[in-house]
Amino acid sequence: MRPKELPIAIDPDSPVPMAHQIVTGLIRAIQGGALPPRAALPGTRVLADSLRVSRNTVLTAYAELSSKGWIAATHGSGSFVADLLPWVARPANASRPEPERSGPPAFDLPARPDLATDQLTRVCKLSLGLPDPRLMPVDELGRAYLRALRRRSRDVLEYGGPFGNRELRAALSSFLGERRGMAVPPDSILITRGNQMSLNLVAQGLIKPGDRAAVEQPGSPQACEILRHAGARLVGIPVDEQGLDAAALAAVLQEGPIRLLYLTPRFQIPTTAQLSAERREHILRLAQEHRFGIIEDDSEAEYGFEERFVPPLAAGPGSASVIYLFSFSRLLAPGIRLGLVSASPDAVDRMARIRRRADMQGDLALERAMAELVADGEIHRHIHRVRRVYQERRDFLIRQMELRFGSRFSLTVPTGGLSLWVRTDPSFDLPAWCERCAGARLQLQPGRDFMLDRSPRPAFRLGFGSYEPAEMEDILRRMEKALPD
Amino acid sequence: MRPKELPIAIDPDSPVPMAHQIVTGLIRAIQGGALPPRAALPGTRVLADSLRVSRNTVLTAYAELSSKGWIAATHGSGSFVADLLPWVARPANASRPEPERSGPPAFDLPARPDLATDQLTRVCKLSLGLPDPRLMPVDELGRAYLRALRRRSRDVLEYGGPFGNRELRAALSSFLGERRGMAVPPDSILITRGNQMSLNLVAQGLIKPGDRAAVEQPGSPQACEILRHAGARLVGIPVDEQGLDAAALAAVLQEGPIRLLYLTPRFQIPTTAQLSAERREHILRLAQEHRFGIIEDDSEAEYGFEERFVPPLAAGPGSASVIYLFSFSRLLAPGIRLGLVSASPDAVDRMARIRRRADMQGDLALERAMAELVADGEIHRHIHRVRRVYQERRDFLIRQMELRFGSRFSLTVPTGGLSLWVRTDPSFDLPAWCERCAGARLQLQPGRDFMLDRSPRPAFRLGFGSYEPAEMEDILRRMEKALPD
Repeated sequence: MRPKELPIAIDPDSPVPMAHQIVTGLIRAIQGGALPPRAALPGTRVLADSLRVSRNTVLTAYAELSSKGWIAATHGSGSFVADLLPWVARPANASRPEPERSGPPAFDLPARPDLATDQLTRVCKLSLGLPDPRLMPVDELGRAYLRALRRRSRDVLEYGGPFGNRELRAALSSFLGERRGMAVPPDSILITRGNQMSLNLVAQGLIKPGDRAAVEQPGSPQACEILRHAGARLVGIPVDEQGLDAAALAAVLQEGPIRLLYLTPRFQIPTTAQLSAERREHILRLAQEHRFGIIEDDSEAEYGFEERFVPPLAAGPGSASVIYLFSFSRLLAPGIRLGLVSASPDAVDRMARIRRRADMQGDLALERAMAELVADGEIHRHIHRVRRVYQERRDFLIRQMELRFGSRFSLTVPTGGLSLWVRTDPSFDLPAWCERCAGARLQLQPGRDFMLDRSPRPAFRLGFGSYEPAEMEDILRRMEKALPD
Repeated sequence: MRPKELPIAIDPDSPVPMAHQIVTGLIRAIQGGALPPRAALPGTRVLADSLRVSRNTVLTAYAELSSKGWIAATHGSGSFVADLLPWVARPANASRPEPERSGPPAFDLPARPDLATDQLTRVCKLSLGLPDPRLMPVDELGRAYLRALRRRSRDVLEYGGPFGNRELRAALSSFLGERRGMAVPPDSILITRGNQMSLNLVAQGLIKPGDRAAVEQPGSPQACEILRHAGARLVGIPVDEQGLDAAALAAVLQEGPIRLLYLTPRFQIPTTAQLSAERREHILRLAQEHRFGIIEDDSEAEYGFEERFVPPLAAGPGSASVIYLFSFSRLLAPGIRLGLVSASPDAVDRMARIRRRADMQGDLALERAMAELVADGEIHRHIHRVRRVYQERRDFLIRQMELRFGSRFSLTVPTGGLSLWVRTDPSFDLPAWCERCAGARLQLQPGRDFMLDRSPRPAFRLGFGSYEPAEMEDILRRMEKALPD
């Protein structure tokens, strides 16, 4: 075979070494059938001239191909495509097989109705209430990561146990003390890969199949899914403008025990209501009396737009009932998978064991990098910066909603968080409008998506964190166009 | 209170901003009781002079403390420690509470006998067969990570789905083609956080409680634990110097179906035996006939020390039965939590759904960085470098074993991998010696640890990857000293 007929091309500007490009090209030619078994390869000098590379480059490539079994060399008569190619028992004259992985598996996938289909593709961006990754201190984090790999490689590249990087646990112990008034020693903190994992660990550690767990209604569908998957029977507790209805919870407890309560007391998901002081105390009292755990999801803690500081339930008396969740995914960017669970050391130890089996340990280099950002104040500066930006975005969205939708929608100004809870007239066909918005590539979740029984709720969640004013205006224009005439 | 009496100190050389140091110090003083509620704080000018900082620094600190509710300011009469401190309902005159998190939780932790106690602390380093993180290209990875955050922030900081970074899946599709002869399109590849997660996903996706799963005997205790946890009843299949006994597997299949077979065909864990060609074909035939899946764990694929290239089962006909695992944790360092599962798209889709619920998505910045290292050939250069090092370490250890332990132990030279399987005389009290080694801080797993029924095996696994010759000599000296007289 003459070199010109070989279907390989070399890109001298590519970062891939040229010898490696030759290896790749020849393997593709062999796999594709252009070079059948026993075909003679061009001599190294001839191929080098034809590809305008040095002969050494071709020699390196041939040596690699030979050591991998793709080609064979005979002294004096050059190189040939190997007779027995690097897959077993393929007939030497068979043409290239279709990639077998595209077909169905040759084993059975047992039925799993609990793995819903629409969850992978349907990202309801507008209703998720996400932060804006463009505001993230990427350089600071990236450089701290590089430093962690360079200077702390012993700590971050070995097995380090499932609890997380030591420095980050210490830094977060201080962080929670300073910013939340929580008195938590480092060994009460488990570092996780964000709230999804945190909640999974709590659910798997505490729930026995059949246990009852209480959730807010309306409430987070993600949290409900995780608790249900762990075997919990869910009981919905209504939410009003003062947060979870503690009296309704007390009534539920009269019927029988619950194992856990999932609570978002600061800016309730999705209604943004703040739990009143009276109800906090009532719920804490119930938890101690009935010995259930309170999962306090406080991931939006830094997004309070008022001066008044409200401590989490985990900061006061009764905190032994509380399992506290916080997430850097919510504070920095969804792609930064880093969160924490704070609970009593016994509970933390339990969850660490489950985490170890599922995932061994976290990314210790990222954890070490984050420890630096927390300890040197970069996280505090970030919070200071973005809080102002998000408050402006909230105010901009509220003005625009009033201008564009006027009396059709109404809302209460949230005191914090990254989303609005917008109420509609009950006569307004909200699901139909959300469908039309989806057609305009706007994914809005109607209120019923936050209900266990999917009963209608005349309201929707609208996040504002990740959109600059011009982007938000464009979104609102498309939402307006999707309105019924 | 005079400033000198305030138990706070400022470190002007610390990277922590000085205002922040003041905030921390004062919160500690309040929490510790040194500054009780309503106590007057020094004036900003006085405190600034006393701490040798600017007055603005103190003003910033006081503003932060005030916005967090720790202190209150009265016009004209200075600042005071707040009356209602940032935790709810604590009596104003109570002394600082003990950190409540150190006590037991106020809720019940249901019994979980499956979470063994000794797993967190007992890291059996010598028997794990780990790579040496000191050989890792930390700079290349760290700089690629920084680049990913800077230039690809849209891709790596948003939600990106549970399958993994697109470029890494494409790069690994080429990598597996070039280095293993596998024809796998990118959508047959799921990026995970290493083999622990990969195996969990396979087990959770395929096993229904009560299903039988076959494992090698002796075999990986980690794999057995994960399969058992997913509900599998484990059936052990003997291993000899040709790898898994296929005839014994056929006999087990006569008794009833199995769902999965966990297989380490390249360098068997722990015996290092290579599966013979005849047995490969027999096992693949059985898999197709009986419709079970083969989990092919090929994480040591790059550590072959012979010229001859042996393709994985996933590269040949019958690959539709194979679920292929590879891990960068084994190739680079235990702390780099990055691996892959390759299987048919249906099976990959199933596992991705489970992964999404457990962990949402991977570290996309790390994945993007690794894609760069794979595509630009850095990984190939790394493999080339370390393979030589590990082969030298293997040879050094074998010579030393012969010198020091002579006829007491015997072994077959492994053709690859990072560990030896050392046979002892059946009369030698191996468990007792391993105990004494543990006393010398050497954690060696005796053969019975690799058996489902913990029956005695006169052999132990000894890793050599992570120790330089001098370190290995020291280890061997301590092992020698622990021998019975």
